[in-house]
Amino acid sequence: MSASEASRESALAGAAGAGAFSVGLLGFGTVGSAFAALLQERAPQIEAITGRRPVLTGALTRSSGSFHEILDGAEAIVELIGGIEPAREYVLAALASGRHVITANKQLLSQHGEELFDAARRAGVQLRFEAAVAGVVPVIRVLCESLAGAHVERIHGIVNGTTNFVLSEMAGGSSYEQALAEAQRRGFAEADPSEDVSGKDAAAKMAILARLAFGTPVHLDQVSYEGIEHLQTDDLQYARELGLGLKLVGAAERRDGGLSVRVHPAFLYSGHPLASVNGPYNAVTVESQAITEITMSGPGAGGPQTASAVLGDLVSVMLPPAAGGDRHGAPRGLGVSSPDPLPLVEDVESAFYIHMEVADRPGALATVAQVLGERGASIKSVVQHGLGDNARLVMVIHPLLESRLRDALLRISELDFLRSTPRAIRVIEEEFT
Amino acid sequence: MSASEASRESALAGAAGAGAFSVGLLGFGTVGSAFAALLQERAPQIEAITGRRPVLTGALTRSSGSFHEILDGAEAIVELIGGIEPAREYVLAALASGRHVITANKQLLSQHGEELFDAARRAGVQLRFEAAVAGVVPVIRVLCESLAGAHVERIHGIVNGTTNFVLSEMAGGSSYEQALAEAQRRGFAEADPSEDVSGKDAAAKMAILARLAFGTPVHLDQVSYEGIEHLQTDDLQYARELGLGLKLVGAAERRDGGLSVRVHPAFLYSGHPLASVNGPYNAVTVESQAITEITMSGPGAGGPQTASAVLGDLVSVMLPPAAGGDRHGAPRGLGVSSPDPLPLVEDVESAFYIHMEVADRPGALATVAQVLGERGASIKSVVQHGLGDNARLVMVIHPLLESRLRDALLRISELDFLRSTPRAIRVIEEEFT
Repeated sequence: MSASEASRESALAGAAGAGAFSVGLLGFGTVGSAFAALLQERAPQIEAITGRRPVLTGALTRSSGSFHEILDGAEAIVELIGGIEPAREYVLAALASGRHVITANKQLLSQHGEELFDAARRAGVQLRFEAAVAGVVPVIRVLCESLAGAHVERIHGIVNGTTNFVLSEMAGGSSYEQALAEAQRRGFAEADPSEDVSGKDAAAKMAILARLAFGTPVHLDQVSYEGIEHLQTDDLQYARELGLGLKLVGAAERRDGGLSVRVHPAFLYSGHPLASVNGPYNAVTVESQAITEITMSGPGAGGPQTASAVLGDLVSVMLPPAAGGDRHGAPRGLGVSSPDPLPLVEDVESAFYIHMEVADRPGALATVAQVLGERGASIKSVVQHGLGDNARLVMVIHPLLESRLRDALLRISELDFLRSTPRAIRVIEEEFT
Repeated sequence: MSASEASRESALAGAAGAGAFSVGLLGFGTVGSAFAALLQERAPQIEAITGRRPVLTGALTRSSGSFHEILDGAEAIVELIGGIEPAREYVLAALASGRHVITANKQLLSQHGEELFDAARRAGVQLRFEAAVAGVVPVIRVLCESLAGAHVERIHGIVNGTTNFVLSEMAGGSSYEQALAEAQRRGFAEADPSEDVSGKDAAAKMAILARLAFGTPVHLDQVSYEGIEHLQTDDLQYARELGLGLKLVGAAERRDGGLSVRVHPAFLYSGHPLASVNGPYNAVTVESQAITEITMSGPGAGGPQTASAVLGDLVSVMLPPAAGGDRHGAPRGLGVSSPDPLPLVEDVESAFYIHMEVADRPGALATVAQVLGERGASIKSVVQHGLGDNARLVMVIHPLLESRLRDALLRISELDFLRSTPRAIRVIEEEFT
């Protein structure tokens, strides 16, 4: 018996007795085993709250356990396998057979969310997934419950702890490569960090948050994202000089009568609630006229943190309804669609910082300014660093449609005095919002 | 008809039709009228989520409306009268007659919480009160739901926006009197600010949070509190020099096998999540081993913010239970007692900053050090400012029982070279925790 198998056997030691609430666990890796341990530790407290003692009655590992046997013996299924298949098949089967499901699977929710929400609705059971976004930071519950009646205007999130750690290290002077190596050494980045540094992981999470906050189906493919691989220590230096934060920001907001969902690095003015979030942390700010804004922050996903978020969902699933509760309408659960879903908007206006390495020719600045001006860009500030062939032009432009900026950058990169590809980073300034 | 009466009439225009969810409102002041307006605006969205349209079917103002008529016509009661009586009588009557109750009344909950929780439990209805603490910051829901299964170690909160605004102004150089006048001018402080500046308002909120996080009944009278009236601009200057925040901190934490709940000014190390919370904001940090920490922040209570928190509770009350939900145990609702309630601990160890104005006599420092040493205090650092009869001694001492510090301060204040009463402020440093 392997160590993992022995731990699974020990977690299953208590079979469900009378009055127990049986939980089937799919996946027994870092999070799965942390969840099993936490469940056992907290069972008495959960019994005091819900009236029933939760007991793990089955666990599916890579090498043992049968999904159908686990399903038969469980009132709720906790899915911690990750990825699309077989997680999707198992979750759909569990929902269809009337089991509540708790999952931490952001890939599944951002690509097949509507199918899962429909299945839960049809079966009248709960589908909960707090752990899928921002680990223990309770953003899903707050959006779906505290703010269920609110008119959300905008969400800004730092929803990937790996990239936030890397950017914090770069702000301290490290290069991107050094910072990433340090993140790997400290267990904050995986051996293959591409899902994180490309912004794709954050994009999946923003798709889920946008779906919940705006009641509008958003598929991962509809979220435009840009990562941190191209950022330079220079850019963070610039941010520090101006008292700005440079973060990988996920945004979901009402724009031009529609909904814009995207992930990209952005300079944040120093008063922005996310500007001071450093290290492997996650944080989400929700804005609406009535509430002004709420910010929630905490450590990004680790095994115990994710397990704790899953446990919170399990307690909610176990809580009996109030006797006075009525029985109209859809069952309590997440994923209600808005009566007015919003069209997704691709091209939005942003302010930009543009960094260009130029050979210091007479008229270089004038030529760049003319190219920008032709695309409707208005320059807010410009600084020239260095001299001669090592000169750098750094400018900030007022909000401009991103398609126009791309077009301008393409034209600028063709200018003969440019010594490398120009870099553009969005700027989120108070005065622009 | 007064303007307020006209607004009430207009809010009541829609009588409850078939499928509507009838809401009775007690209190029609700033928050009450903001709630009525928000409810009307958001009714279609709430109907989409819950399956029923919420309709205000009665409102009790100072001069009109009958509680019993309102109760008869309502499925849920929203209590926004404030104070103890008649709010207590109305809430108990509503719960006893099977109505869900939503209240923002911190006085009532911190002084009669157990009576209300029992009444809700007996009737099998929900009692919700998100708006009673930290306005729109969803700390109640997160403690009772997301963290229901967690073993909370500590809560630190900035739960009074008035005092946080005053301290932020003082950090900028204002005197206490100037800062308070500015808070009053900007509507962040009432004409009589004594409940806020004395720490009593924060104490009521910490009693509620401690009750929920630790499952242990805590009455307002059991919370020791100290306000900000005695703080000097000097102290904030000192904080700034050392990169510390000086905040009015509410703490509820496990200490010596019991529970300590208290409110007092404290210096916070710069990495503390609350150290950077400025202006009329509220923020709460919850620590537990499994989650590390979560921080939630947002604007302190204003009319629209409080109304939004009440609306979130109303949506929760209206949500029908999942069909698969079971019916064992206590009804969903707040205020579950722990199977292991904790004894309340009065006297705990804290690190202190001590500020003394002394005539510069030979041996003054030695005498003070001796008095402290006799009470077990160990000095961590000491700085002498100024010379001669204007000298000030500022020291930080390692954690010491508060009763011993009080005793030492009493003795020190009797020393003949002391020119004024010594001031002591708690220090929350990373290394001490």
